Amino acid sequence: MRPGYRPNALRYGMLAALLVASPWASAAHAEEGMWTMDNLPVKQMQAQYGFTPSADWIKRVTQSSARLALGCSASFVSGDGLVMTNHHCANECLSELSGASHNYMQDGYTSAAQAREPKCPAMELDRLDTISDVTPRMNAALAGKHGADYTRAQQAAESSIEKSCVGGDATLWRCDVVTLYHGGRTALYRYRRYQDVRLVFAPDQNAAFFGGDPDNFNFPRYDLDVTFLRAYDNGHPAHTQFFPFDPAGPKDGQLVFTSGNPGSTSREEPVAQLQLLRDLELPSTYGYLSTLDGILWEYGRTGASAAQDAQDEVFGVENSLKVYTGWLQTLADPSMLAAKQKAEDSLRQWIDADPQRKNQYGDPWATLAPSLVAERRLFVPYVMLEGTRAPRGFAGDLFGYAKMLVRGAAERAKPDADRLSEYHDAKLPAIEAQLGSSAPVHPNLERTLLAFSLTRLRQSLGADDAAVKTILGKQSPEEMSTHLVNFTNLGDAKVRMQLWHGGQAAIDKSTDPMIVLARTVEPLARSLRDQWDNQVKAPQREASEALARARFARAGTSVYPDATFTQRLSYGTVKGWDENGHQVPAFTRFSGLYDRATGSDPFKLTKPWLAAKSKLDLDTPFDFASTNDIIGGNSGSPVIDAKGHAVGLIFDGNIHSLGGDFTYDGSQNRAVSVDTTALLAALKTVYRNQALADELVSGHLGGHAGAAGKS
Amino acid sequence: MRPGYRPNALRYGMLAALLVASPWASAAHAEEGMWTMDNLPVKQMQAQYGFTPSADWIKRVTQSSARLALGCSASFVSGDGLVMTNHHCANECLSELSGASHNYMQDGYTSAAQAREPKCPAMELDRLDTISDVTPRMNAALAGKHGADYTRAQQAAESSIEKSCVGGDATLWRCDVVTLYHGGRTALYRYRRYQDVRLVFAPDQNAAFFGGDPDNFNFPRYDLDVTFLRAYDNGHPAHTQFFPFDPAGPKDGQLVFTSGNPGSTSREEPVAQLQLLRDLELPSTYGYLSTLDGILWEYGRTGASAAQDAQDEVFGVENSLKVYTGWLQTLADPSMLAAKQKAEDSLRQWIDADPQRKNQYGDPWATLAPSLVAERRLFVPYVMLEGTRAPRGFAGDLFGYAKMLVRGAAERAKPDADRLSEYHDAKLPAIEAQLGSSAPVHPNLERTLLAFSLTRLRQSLGADDAAVKTILGKQSPEEMSTHLVNFTNLGDAKVRMQLWHGGQAAIDKSTDPMIVLARTVEPLARSLRDQWDNQVKAPQREASEALARARFARAGTSVYPDATFTQRLSYGTVKGWDENGHQVPAFTRFSGLYDRATGSDPFKLTKPWLAAKSKLDLDTPFDFASTNDIIGGNSGSPVIDAKGHAVGLIFDGNIHSLGGDFTYDGSQNRAVSVDTTALLAALKTVYRNQALADELVSGHLGGHAGAAGKS
Repeated sequence: MRPGYRPNALRYGMLAALLVASPWASAAHAEEGMWTMDNLPVKQMQAQYGFTPSADWIKRVTQSSARLALGCSASFVSGDGLVMTNHHCANECLSELSGASHNYMQDGYTSAAQAREPKCPAMELDRLDTISDVTPRMNAALAGKHGADYTRAQQAAESSIEKSCVGGDATLWRCDVVTLYHGGRTALYRYRRYQDVRLVFAPDQNAAFFGGDPDNFNFPRYDLDVTFLRAYDNGHPAHTQFFPFDPAGPKDGQLVFTSGNPGSTSREEPVAQLQLLRDLELPSTYGYLSTLDGILWEYGRTGASAAQDAQDEVFGVENSLKVYTGWLQTLADPSMLAAKQKAEDSLRQWIDADPQRKNQYGDPWATLAPSLVAERRLFVPYVMLEGTRAPRGFAGDLFGYAKMLVRGAAERAKPDADRLSEYHDAKLPAIEAQLGSSAPVHPNLERTLLAFSLTRLRQSLGADDAAVKTILGKQSPEEMSTHLVNFTNLGDAKVRMQLWHGGQAAIDKSTDPMIVLARTVEPLARSLRDQWDNQVKAPQREASEALARARFARAGTSVYPDATFTQRLSYGTVKGWDENGHQVPAFTRFSGLYDRATGSDPFKLTKPWLAAKSKLDLDTPFDFASTNDIIGGNSGSPVIDAKGHAVGLIFDGNIHSLGGDFTYDGSQNRAVSVDTTALLAALKTVYRNQALADELVSGHLGGHAGAAGKS
Repeated sequence: MRPGYRPNALRYGMLAALLVASPWASAAHAEEGMWTMDNLPVKQMQAQYGFTPSADWIKRVTQSSARLALGCSASFVSGDGLVMTNHHCANECLSELSGASHNYMQDGYTSAAQAREPKCPAMELDRLDTISDVTPRMNAALAGKHGADYTRAQQAAESSIEKSCVGGDATLWRCDVVTLYHGGRTALYRYRRYQDVRLVFAPDQNAAFFGGDPDNFNFPRYDLDVTFLRAYDNGHPAHTQFFPFDPAGPKDGQLVFTSGNPGSTSREEPVAQLQLLRDLELPSTYGYLSTLDGILWEYGRTGASAAQDAQDEVFGVENSLKVYTGWLQTLADPSMLAAKQKAEDSLRQWIDADPQRKNQYGDPWATLAPSLVAERRLFVPYVMLEGTRAPRGFAGDLFGYAKMLVRGAAERAKPDADRLSEYHDAKLPAIEAQLGSSAPVHPNLERTLLAFSLTRLRQSLGADDAAVKTILGKQSPEEMSTHLVNFTNLGDAKVRMQLWHGGQAAIDKSTDPMIVLARTVEPLARSLRDQWDNQVKAPQREASEALARARFARAGTSVYPDATFTQRLSYGTVKGWDENGHQVPAFTRFSGLYDRATGSDPFKLTKPWLAAKSKLDLDTPFDFASTNDIIGGNSGSPVIDAKGHAVGLIFDGNIHSLGGDFTYDGSQNRAVSVDTTALLAALKTVYRNQALADELVSGHLGGHAGAAGKS
């Protein structure tokens, strides 16, 4: 599945260079590209498909699309705030709303009426409003800066831009400064922020994730990977632009678009950085996640309740492992790296051929070299003690809360411009939503995760490491984890919010053992963060920007930037592919689902599906493949036709799409979607949710199927 | 730790080329080398150390050394069959002799008297008797053969040679045809076989493996990783040559030797094969073992009995993971591969420079190329369904027994020469010892391992794979594993031996579900084995032999062959090293052990150690580092001085030694041993085993410390 799941600190190094049409990514793969909404390849689309999007089309598509802050895409599909995304994008909400007596993630959920839709505890939905170019302002702020100065100047400029954009109402607006083309351009994305998002409908997990991990990233496929949510505005359903729902789905060979938020790609990353990823970071991350996968698998076997508690985590870990397996395979392909090396050599020769160019772009590879040495040295301690999302040495929600509270108190005491970017004023509402979340904490799972990660911390850094000694003292990881989880009160949202509002004084006097641990770790983690930002990230960004400028100057425009978890349009066609001489058709059908069902997990159907078999048209299209260029983060993206109507819902890619982080191969790389025809048939015939089917077809709440909402 | 543990099928591809003094392995590292006993570097030793071993010295060292068939080294240390090896080499025996009321692996064991020493259920000890050269005979048998013909001819020749060597008494003699120098030479190793090996003494696990996984492959170190066994001959202690025990241990800077059985190295493997190892096989194996590690870790947390059942498996997995982490790091070093590539390019130029050479050696790289394509295609199905030791898709002892029975019945029905090499008559006693072993089978652990591996089988090959469909049918891995383990009778050694003796007829009519499964898997596994042997191994061996001949012709003799789990002598000095500007001393002392003990696992000391603190001379040397060139399989090797006296016991290497599979770096690569002084002090003062201490010092049972057995 294509989620935005990004384990700690793997993807930090993706400051590369502007993408140009490289040898393996040009004419042969005309459908390559994740285009920003303000720079669509209009000429190519017209030449290939005779289609030119109007300004109105672009605006409607932009404003009907949305993003889930946790790392997925979504779309509005009724005028009353109805949102379509993937089941696996709503895992967290479904888990958090579940309890001892009801498991929404496993069994699904159907709201009895709009007024009774339950609020997802910690979900944020952002709808893109405007994009503006802030490149000149950023360039001015960064000119002549290096290392720590560079990092500080960047943070200060971003903070100032975001703050003025939010305009004092950070609950209504979200503003993100986004670096595109690896520094070639800086844009400001302003989003309408929705933090009141409620659950409307989810199918059972067996249908949403039929085939489970074995089928994940494979096709043919038979998944109803959908969840419907509703965005609320002041307690009422929000009213926005939306994609009218096409009950007939797409046809084989048809032109289709996806409008979503691909998380990140590394297609123009310098080869030396890709090699470091392949040789150091990827094996380390793969090993960590593989071990965690084994722990969670065995943990889940101890009972149904343990399995339920771990379900969400298991899903993320297994999915990531599959992605990384694909990465390992792609990066091990010598021809792929050789092609990239050739393009890079050619760029270097182009620069070196002209003294003026040499003067203008310098030697980006020389800038890069020491950063790679630093990266090699710092990687393990950095990911263990600091990490990008969370430190690998302290897994689980509880330490995550403690770190957020300890660091948040120190950061909020500083002027906005001096803070780490994730603690800018504009980001605080999202942090407060997380801290205040009513999502339950599972102590036994927390003890397991923490004991494992402390063990790994000691193993990775060595028992003689000063930080390890400071942290563990004479305790074993198991003893320490048990003590911390048993005696902390951070599982209680009220306690967390008190500490948050109490600021530095509250943190200083807290005796909560998890806070005490986070205070101990903080100076060690801070020091690594500083070294990482200044010795690794800053020079890599400098090098990337120089490369980006050179590539721009040489190759001109008409290129798309590497993915940045911002809205992109990809165009393509509904199409199967040739797999070792065997033709894989573009569509699967309901009949195939029933053929594949064995009665055993993960190929087991629930009773409503078994009962509906005789009532469904088994020839109905179910899932389909298309050539759209997508990546993790695109999960939940709508598939739309040239009229701007929804005809499908992206939820995965095929196995060949896993190399998409580094390259796009149009002959085999396929996006995988649910057909809108299947969505409607399942809602009506399997789940008997006529009201939701009617809202989709009519485009408004309480509408009737006859009253088509299509424009 | 340095064991012989080799997970399935990783090391199959080690048919490379004859080692010559390559640029990074010559003068700079004079102590490099794992020398066969019949080709010691006499001139180098004389030049460097003024020491020339006499023929008598060589013979005594040869015949006092031994090998444990499961993958470790050992030595005779008294004239009454007393054998010294590592605690971790006796894990299997210690686990198998443990029960609900006594855990010998955890708590240690001290035999009350020689007559009461318990027999290790499935341990085989082999003492090298003679080495003879069978190169001409093998060359004649293989001349002009390719592919399947080559494999068949090789098996037939080996079978015939081994059979005549054993001379009809396979319980007394073991004969192995050994390919040295990657086919440059073939030798016949004749061993005296001991299958009655009994347990004399083992320390508690806390002392044997103090520091556990975090300290493993690290130094300074404080481990008493020893177990004493006794070889029996017709029910009486065996009488053999032995190494007199030096109670004073070695000195810093002293010349020392190890005489052991390094398992395998790949120092002259062609670069293309190393790249395939790095890019395909190593990540796959690393991921599999990491997941298994997580499963076993969590399994062990469910209770003390579960932890005990899994202990042996955990140890092997964690140790392998550390080794593979080292491999990943070494293979990711571009300068190491570049140096190897340079040496290979130079050899290629040397061949190409002369038409006669071209004619003689052909183009080994062209022979190699298609085998790498086949390896890439076959690797995953091969390791999942067949594997070298056991198929990864069917983990656990029970399926292992079933496969051995099913395949064994079919193979034994053929003439010896037509069988797969592991079923030659000469190998049958070892198989029968395994099948007849009284070692307990742990059903819950078996269910876990089998459910995991079947899940991995389906995940790796895909749910649509024909083999997966045949094997799983409509069952889930969990259901299938539960059914198989609950209803098989193969946990009973009597049942296994009945099936073994019943031959093909008994296998055909068995309804035991594990036998039924093994019968189903057998044709699939056989087919992969054939493809693997003929398309991967045979051409790689052909290429390696051509390279070996070319290297011989170019560089002459005075080189050592890659390791083959046969007896080798390595010489070196007791010596610390420089670690990033910090000097690591050669010795640790008892005082350091007490300083490092935290009271928590794995840094916890048992009561006898705590009680002995005041009675021990804390300045006694404990463990030491030396420059000897060793590798997995060397565990349990004696460290001996120029007089041929035992001064230490190899049990590990430092972290830099992990690259030793591919290269030897004398500046940092260190072997790690227990000092004989520490062994005696611990036996006398901590474990109060004066009888064993006396036997060591006197050289015979019932001896007294005063009656020195030194020659």
